[in-house]
Amino acid sequence: MDTMVAGVHFLPDDPADLVARKLLRVNLSDLAASGATPLTYFLSLSLPASVTGDWIADFASGLATDQRIFGIALSGGDTTSTPGPVTLSLTAIGEVPAGQAIRRASATPGEDIYVSGTIGDAALALVLMRKDGVEAALARAPALVARYRLPEPRVALGPALRGIATAAIDISDGLFADLGHICETSGIGAEVSFSAVPLSEAAARQLAGDPQLSEQIVTGGDDYELLFCARPEDAPRIAELARSLGLPITPIGRTTTGTAPLVKAASGEAMSLKSPGWRHF
Amino acid sequence: MDTMVAGVHFLPDDPADLVARKLLRVNLSDLAASGATPLTYFLSLSLPASVTGDWIADFASGLATDQRIFGIALSGGDTTSTPGPVTLSLTAIGEVPAGQAIRRASATPGEDIYVSGTIGDAALALVLMRKDGVEAALARAPALVARYRLPEPRVALGPALRGIATAAIDISDGLFADLGHICETSGIGAEVSFSAVPLSEAAARQLAGDPQLSEQIVTGGDDYELLFCARPEDAPRIAELARSLGLPITPIGRTTTGTAPLVKAASGEAMSLKSPGWRHF
Repeated sequence: MDTMVAGVHFLPDDPADLVARKLLRVNLSDLAASGATPLTYFLSLSLPASVTGDWIADFASGLATDQRIFGIALSGGDTTSTPGPVTLSLTAIGEVPAGQAIRRASATPGEDIYVSGTIGDAALALVLMRKDGVEAALARAPALVARYRLPEPRVALGPALRGIATAAIDISDGLFADLGHICETSGIGAEVSFSAVPLSEAAARQLAGDPQLSEQIVTGGDDYELLFCARPEDAPRIAELARSLGLPITPIGRTTTGTAPLVKAASGEAMSLKSPGWRHF
Repeated sequence: MDTMVAGVHFLPDDPADLVARKLLRVNLSDLAASGATPLTYFLSLSLPASVTGDWIADFASGLATDQRIFGIALSGGDTTSTPGPVTLSLTAIGEVPAGQAIRRASATPGEDIYVSGTIGDAALALVLMRKDGVEAALARAPALVARYRLPEPRVALGPALRGIATAAIDISDGLFADLGHICETSGIGAEVSFSAVPLSEAAARQLAGDPQLSEQIVTGGDDYELLFCARPEDAPRIAELARSLGLPITPIGRTTTGTAPLVKAASGEAMSLKSPGWRHF
């Protein structure tokens, strides 16, 4: 169940169809992290009087598109008025065979840590959009803005990790913070090398222009990639899974007997992260 | 899934524990109307910066109380900040044997219409609270205010109606409007006698003082009683059910071949209802 509030989780003039699709996708991403396959969803819309019929039509059209893509349908929900901003709440229901759900709390020291896809794209899009405005960001780095607006929930990877991942989480708060959630609930530490974190070409280009963006990449959030732990002997199975899904799955570090995550810079020093969590803009 | 917004569905200074319990209960009422037994729930809280720790503690304490009463536990959810009012969304999950869910669309003409408990208490409380303020209403009609603040979801009746009720709904929008939902989805009409509608002593007293309150009673909403249809031959089973549950279940009319609900006043004339639906205050 995830809630998105206009002005907190999205900009009031973000395209309504993309807002709808992002809302559905961030929930599907949560299901994937549990190894669950999507079954259905419930939706609550709290709308101020200023919302237009066009906005609602666009929102519905975005939902319809993603319902087709992900083979999921709306089962119910609620619609209310509000004197506040547009507030959208979605509960996605998935299923997983009994006892096979992937949890956050079951990682142990000495395991490999992996992430799917690439990290930091959405956070870098947000940096650009804040600095230069949406239009300029779209012109300069359309791939990053697209990743921010429309995450790709790893719905095929999640269920395939049952029996392989010892723990998993989807990266919404940021790689560092979400790895921290696994460390905290599992009672372990983790050591990740920044140089191993997979970047898209567009993100690598931004980072080359401003090396300080490394902090945004590991703390920015909104990636909706899966971060998971697995025993070293399962490395070949994971490599095979990446091949069969056509999705990069990259080892970025190891779990330890510590109590918190640590990201090492190329220098070998631990990165000092000013804002470890994700903040709403 | 039901959403409650401060200033729309509850008053900002309503006791937080009762707000929490009402939020859970209106959802359990929905499950009961489907014949489902509660399984678990998900909760989203969108809170403005003005909300205090005390408010949150009271809210949690109310949830804890009702979790014990109804044997249900929180499975997850979301917490976000909002620049708007407190916005609470709850998704309750229940279970019902395959094929036995009670629907709204399956009533046919010639069936009896029943309601559980008493009707109009919450609506009359709201009338008093609006007219004289909360304190005066509490002093004059505590039973009515209690019914407004803390509905009693019919969690035992709902599942017991499987195989008996041809259609059911919980009365949240008002007896007239919710009966209208059954008529609309089932493609039938309905005729109800106001004099058959069961009233509490407190409600009957208010009505005796102001006969015009009859309209509030049938349209006011927030009853969270079950309204259902059943074949005439099932009347004995329903009477037995009422006895075994210790809960009044009252026949109030019949379904017809019409297309809309009709409430007959004591005079035999159809009541003319100015505001057929329920309005947020």
